[in-house]
Amino acid sequence: MRNTRNKARRLSAMAVTSHDVARLAGVSQPTVSRALRDQWGVSASTRRRVREAARTLGYVPIQAGRTLSTQTSGRIGIVSAELSNPFYPAIIEPVHDELARLGFRTILVTDRGYEPIELEPIIDGSLDGVILTTTDLTSKLPCELHRRGVPFVLLNRETHGTDYDACVVNNTRGVWDLAKLLIGLGHQRIGAIFGPDTASTGLERRTGFARAVESLGGSLPNSLTFSGSFSSSTGFEGFNYLWDSRPTAIFCGNDVIAFGAMNAATALGVRIPEEVTIVGFDNIPMSSWDMFGLTTIGVSLEEMAIAAVGLLTQRMEDTERPVQRVTMEPQITLRSTHARSRDVEAESH
Amino acid sequence: MRNTRNKARRLSAMAVTSHDVARLAGVSQPTVSRALRDQWGVSASTRRRVREAARTLGYVPIQAGRTLSTQTSGRIGIVSAELSNPFYPAIIEPVHDELARLGFRTILVTDRGYEPIELEPIIDGSLDGVILTTTDLTSKLPCELHRRGVPFVLLNRETHGTDYDACVVNNTRGVWDLAKLLIGLGHQRIGAIFGPDTASTGLERRTGFARAVESLGGSLPNSLTFSGSFSSSTGFEGFNYLWDSRPTAIFCGNDVIAFGAMNAATALGVRIPEEVTIVGFDNIPMSSWDMFGLTTIGVSLEEMAIAAVGLLTQRMEDTERPVQRVTMEPQITLRSTHARSRDVEAESH
Repeated sequence: MRNTRNKARRLSAMAVTSHDVARLAGVSQPTVSRALRDQWGVSASTRRRVREAARTLGYVPIQAGRTLSTQTSGRIGIVSAELSNPFYPAIIEPVHDELARLGFRTILVTDRGYEPIELEPIIDGSLDGVILTTTDLTSKLPCELHRRGVPFVLLNRETHGTDYDACVVNNTRGVWDLAKLLIGLGHQRIGAIFGPDTASTGLERRTGFARAVESLGGSLPNSLTFSGSFSSSTGFEGFNYLWDSRPTAIFCGNDVIAFGAMNAATALGVRIPEEVTIVGFDNIPMSSWDMFGLTTIGVSLEEMAIAAVGLLTQRMEDTERPVQRVTMEPQITLRSTHARSRDVEAESH
Repeated sequence: MRNTRNKARRLSAMAVTSHDVARLAGVSQPTVSRALRDQWGVSASTRRRVREAARTLGYVPIQAGRTLSTQTSGRIGIVSAELSNPFYPAIIEPVHDELARLGFRTILVTDRGYEPIELEPIIDGSLDGVILTTTDLTSKLPCELHRRGVPFVLLNRETHGTDYDACVVNNTRGVWDLAKLLIGLGHQRIGAIFGPDTASTGLERRTGFARAVESLGGSLPNSLTFSGSFSSSTGFEGFNYLWDSRPTAIFCGNDVIAFGAMNAATALGVRIPEEVTIVGFDNIPMSSWDMFGLTTIGVSLEEMAIAAVGLLTQRMEDTERPVQRVTMEPQITLRSTHARSRDVEAESH
């Protein structure tokens, strides 16, 4: 208690800010604002500690609101245009949970991929911040939000040549690891079904995978690549197209594409992994289903959600802080869709 | 043109309403409002026809807005608490498309199943109407919306003992058809993995299926039933529980439960349909994937979306109109997860 009073005395010379309350209470600055605004989710003991610190310093709660904005709604928007791509429901759930843990409500602003997201519901003051999940490389939405001072964070996908808070996966490292796995299993006729170049994930995985295969002594001719949207139908069409060239392994731009490729293999009676290895990217919950058992790579969606929400709340607290970028390192999960190349197997017989 | 003028003269004696404009232009009343509000999606030729009719009748556009409400946002909320259940992304997409076709924007109000949906973002005036998709039987949300005069429609799930606009599937007919299919294939040891009794879909399918099996001369002992949430994990656990009793066929409360049951069968090395028949309910897009090939029953999600949006826009136009209930009749889709009972097969050998 004496220690607390001393701290308080040292701080009292200057104008008291929420940073001072945070320091005195031994909590983060966002926690101070949440505790004093009451409506946000903070434990009772933390709330008491923050209130006591604010009282000690003569810091009045109204300022806590002001450090954020003159009016807050307690609502965060998640912008997502691809709900039928199971990656997005899968990432939205932990984002929702993390926002709820901090006392925020979630509003999902959705649109179909072929239309631009409408700006107005995002900037009409009904949202304290926005998480953008399906941003295209050329999307103007981040720039518009930045211009209007709406706090936001890019989750999973980025835009070209701009510098905003973002939480992304190290796609280049991920595809490198997958290429190494395939080459290591003796695959020489490798095919690939890529996502769209309009998304940073699609572009990075395509260029990164091609470069990795070549660096590792393999090759990826045009006849063994196929591109489309991040959907099972792309995987289905892609597999049917590639199968004419009989690749021994196929990299898929995401897990959903891989499911489509597996469906096409099933329809053709091609056995996985005996006749063809299939690997995906993202490690969404469905890829662990026994019927798929997909070998894939990805990050913890829970950790990614927590990191993205963390970036957003920091931005909401301080719109002037330097831009932060969190890059998550993906890990391979070996399941049952990969095997040694049938060419290698044939040679050893 | 002369005909139009005559119609106009006959109508001019009384106060002109949007109904009159609609009659003269030969379109529906909602189309008149949309055409005159301009922001809504109506074809150029229809808009011209409506404008001409309005001019002829001396009907001023401002009234079109007033017949709806003094202020409209052009936004419809879809309330859905179960995005990880692929049925909801699957129905949300055609609802979104139908709303977009009529010029409305979609806002998805989401929540996790274990929390009540927050009322405030739905009733704060930012939405012209609401589509409720994951309503529990005891949910208070429909009653609250009704009390506050917010136009809404229940989609797929209903509440107990209340009378609101709703678009639902004939679950009782659906499970009857499935029971008949299973009994007809000679199955006598039938198991079931049901969804929750807290949802009208779960309750109707459970009681309806049990009644149908008994009416058709079969039986459904407690040892052969399992209940849980509408999730793949319920199907997985349910299959493992039921498999001790070696049912020859299993009805699943929805397709997602059926996928979980298929995963459990795969993990145990149980062949479908040779050793066990599995059927689902809903016929979501994934059930047609070659890896599942699920025999199931359902309605066209597009038709259901169009019907629900139709009920909502009619309610928005006229809050006093009688309650309407649309019941969609489901159709069986025979794929590859059903077969004659192995008991019958054994007898015939």
